[in-house]
Amino acid sequence: MMLEELRREVYRANMELPAKGLVVYTWGNVSGIDRDKGLIVIKPSGVEYDDLTPENLVVVDLNNNIVEGTMNPSSDTKTHVELYKSFPKIGGIVHTHSPHAVGWAQAGKDIPCYGTTHADYFYGSVPCTRNLTRDEVDSDYELNTGKVIAETFSERKLDPVAVPGVICRSHGPFAWGKNAAQAVYHAVVLEEVAKMAMYTVNISANAPEAPQYVLDKHYLRKHGPGAYYGQGN
Amino acid sequence: MMLEELRREVYRANMELPAKGLVVYTWGNVSGIDRDKGLIVIKPSGVEYDDLTPENLVVVDLNNNIVEGTMNPSSDTKTHVELYKSFPKIGGIVHTHSPHAVGWAQAGKDIPCYGTTHADYFYGSVPCTRNLTRDEVDSDYELNTGKVIAETFSERKLDPVAVPGVICRSHGPFAWGKNAAQAVYHAVVLEEVAKMAMYTVNISANAPEAPQYVLDKHYLRKHGPGAYYGQGN
Amino acid sequence: MMLEELRREVYRANMELPAKGLVVYTWGNVSGIDRDKGLIVIKPSGVEYDDLTPENLVVVDLNNNIVEGTMNPSSDTKTHVELYKSFPKIGGIVHTHSPHAVGWAQAGKDIPCYGTTHADYFYGSVPCTRNLTRDEVDSDYELNTGKVIAETFSERKLDPVAVPGVICRSHGPFAWGKNAAQAVYHAVVLEEVAKMAMYTVNISANAPEAPQYVLDKHYLRKHGPGAYYGQGN
Amino acid sequence: MMLEELRREVYRANMELPAKGLVVYTWGNVSGIDRDKGLIVIKPSGVEYDDLTPENLVVVDLNNNIVEGTMNPSSDTKTHVELYKSFPKIGGIVHTHSPHAVGWAQAGKDIPCYGTTHADYFYGSVPCTRNLTRDEVDSDYELNTGKVIAETFSERKLDPVAVPGVICRSHGPFAWGKNAAQAVYHAVVLEEVAKMAMYTVNISANAPEAPQYVLDKHYLRKHGPGAYYGQGN
Repeated sequence: MMLEELRREVYRANMELPAKGLVVYTWGNVSGIDRDKGLIVIKPSGVEYDDLTPENLVVVDLNNNIVEGTMNPSSDTKTHVELYKSFPKIGGIVHTHSPHAVGWAQAGKDIPCYGTTHADYFYGSVPCTRNLTRDEVDSDYELNTGKVIAETFSERKLDPVAVPGVICRSHGPFAWGKNAAQAVYHAVVLEEVAKMAMYTVNISANAPEAPQYVLDKHYLRKHGPGAYYGQGN
Repeated sequence: MMLEELRREVYRANMELPAKGLVVYTWGNVSGIDRDKGLIVIKPSGVEYDDLTPENLVVVDLNNNIVEGTMNPSSDTKTHVELYKSFPKIGGIVHTHSPHAVGWAQAGKDIPCYGTTHADYFYGSVPCTRNLTRDEVDSDYELNTGKVIAETFSERKLDPVAVPGVICRSHGPFAWGKNAAQAVYHAVVLEEVAKMAMYTVNISANAPEAPQYVLDKHYLRKHGPGAYYGQGN
Repeated sequence: MMLEELRREVYRANMELPAKGLVVYTWGNVSGIDRDKGLIVIKPSGVEYDDLTPENLVVVDLNNNIVEGTMNPSSDTKTHVELYKSFPKIGGIVHTHSPHAVGWAQAGKDIPCYGTTHADYFYGSVPCTRNLTRDEVDSDYELNTGKVIAETFSERKLDPVAVPGVICRSHGPFAWGKNAAQAVYHAVVLEEVAKMAMYTVNISANAPEAPQYVLDKHYLRKHGPGAYYGQGN
Repeated sequence: MMLEELRREVYRANMELPAKGLVVYTWGNVSGIDRDKGLIVIKPSGVEYDDLTPENLVVVDLNNNIVEGTMNPSSDTKTHVELYKSFPKIGGIVHTHSPHAVGWAQAGKDIPCYGTTHADYFYGSVPCTRNLTRDEVDSDYELNTGKVIAETFSERKLDPVAVPGVICRSHGPFAWGKNAAQAVYHAVVLEEVAKMAMYTVNISANAPEAPQYVLDKHYLRKHGPGAYYGQGN
């Protein structure tokens, strides 16, 4: 069987979703990519987490062909593939329906960067995409979900490494990272900052975003050449 | 003892209610029906989940007569029976007081279909019934609760298979499915989408519902002849 | 040692508070009374639940004298004693700082009876007392807390058996019942209906209370000579 | 190795943060000080709680020099040091991103003293600092975070023993106490009263604070020469 290490990594990352309370039933999926081989390991569609194993994960290529596996891949596979194509620096992707992020997605609003918890991981608002058009939905829904995410980042000139997640209008969050484990980490953070942002507007409907220089400081404390958080590894 | 397999199925479905955090104390009940025999297996009234066994479930017929069992059936039995009569395609029913669904029921509002989490399972708003009249309450409260649910679906021309749940005004949710297990699944989803919908209005009081074509796509991705979610079984 | 059975009952009821998630640290206490002897068993003040035993509970009489025990009784003891004197039919009392009930108490509002979950246990709004006056606070705070609760029930002509709880303005809930176990049950219900009522106003700020005849029906389904919920014991 | 007892105490206090649900991942840190030696024991930066031991805690002096330890201390170390210098009576400090306290910090509002739960531990509102200026952020962010906290207490004439915590605008809470364990206790209380205060404004946007004489009573019931809560130790 191919891609043994990546399978284990994607398996562990998938199992983090129920462990962190991000998913109900099968409402989530994680993938990881081997950029050299151009192959993606992804959760099979509709399988309970208790039944998941490294072996029943599905391997697809960047043309959405199943390369290995006997089950259907996640119904969101084309979205994952499109994101890997559009964002060449990312190595793992997560989709969930975590409730506070969904709340913002259903409200159709970016998650404002109200504070340092957010700024430590997302360099600015978490963008909310537009709704897909009827044509986009009817022609190829999952592919176009990926395209609309990429369009959002392109039009707003956002760097997907600095803003490692998005909320899809009327739908829910996608998050990503350098690998599957970091993608899940970012999905957990996205839900947490979505919750804190909801609390913020519940306390004060017109709360302003944090000053830009505070956000710069916090993001750059953890990221880039001047970072000094953690143990330097 | 009759209906051994159905008893086990209804027992397991009842035990899912506390496991999924849907009930406090004894505030919930699940039933299942054997359509061939015209017999319903239902939780006994007021019994703690820890004391529940497949054997102490009560069997009633479609005239609300106890056919087997030494305990009183759920006080909501007549509502279950009325729903089985009105909705001939359903095989299991759940009633809970899950808190977010109760919040919408107490507010007297349908749960709007704000997004795809909802549309994956409920094809449109989850309807909120009218209040029962004084006469309906005084003459036969539980029977009339079932009748008002059926009236709501009839007047709004809703298909109970496509919209597998309801919230009863000033009361709480009922959900159903092809069997008891699926009914509980739908009760869990109903509480989750009620929560997400409350978050949505807390973030943006006037959030619009999702476009109809998005809801069509999501519902039909999982249901009907063109469904492609899951493993095709 | 006296009152062995009552000690065990009050001990078990106290231990239910952390088990049901109603208390943080030592923020709660339960008592029970032996009406024949005129003696009350109550939690010692500031003791962690992990350190609680039936033996270290304190016995006081209706004049607030310690009859048995080496520790100080709960600082709220005089409130408990006053309630036992004012409400002769109750056998157990609980005080907690459960967060949703505190939210209503701090808002200074009765918890409206929005639906059947509430009406099943509390026959009408859960009343919120007035604030104590400066003199009442300075002269004997805990005694006067009990007196103001009794005043609230007297002035509003409420029956403490039909409305087995209260929220004290700027403070939090007290609940009671025929014994310590039922008092805790009512404290759990009070927190749950406080949460549901908050959700209700978050969804619809001007939600009306449920019709009186619905509340009558639900309360009387469970209480009094015509009750038919449960197994008749 | 130095400061064995303080290491164990600070280790246990750090481990309380995940146990009490106050932290996600590594988002929190606790320190304790030996006032005689002028040495502070603090969590290393970015280390998972599962990997924490008394031995890998870092010892720093009041000039922010590492005295013992092979890892980087918490990136917030300069804030802790500044607070120990400004508030000579405190012996332990905690920083978390607990979500309700962050909600108030992001809203830029003091947490009002709405009731007795709050008054039992915080004698008045929990203050929210101003935002740091651009210069303060750019020159020495963590040091100036400590200075702005001290400025807030100085300008408002607050006693850090009577108000053992603060929320930093656009950031989150710091709490402290006579030692590391009490600091964590106060951090738990701060999150709980932040939650209750959010519920209060969600129920009634214009809820008034509790009367001052009620707050005096509750605070002084637990603190100072007239205290009578607990067992007198």
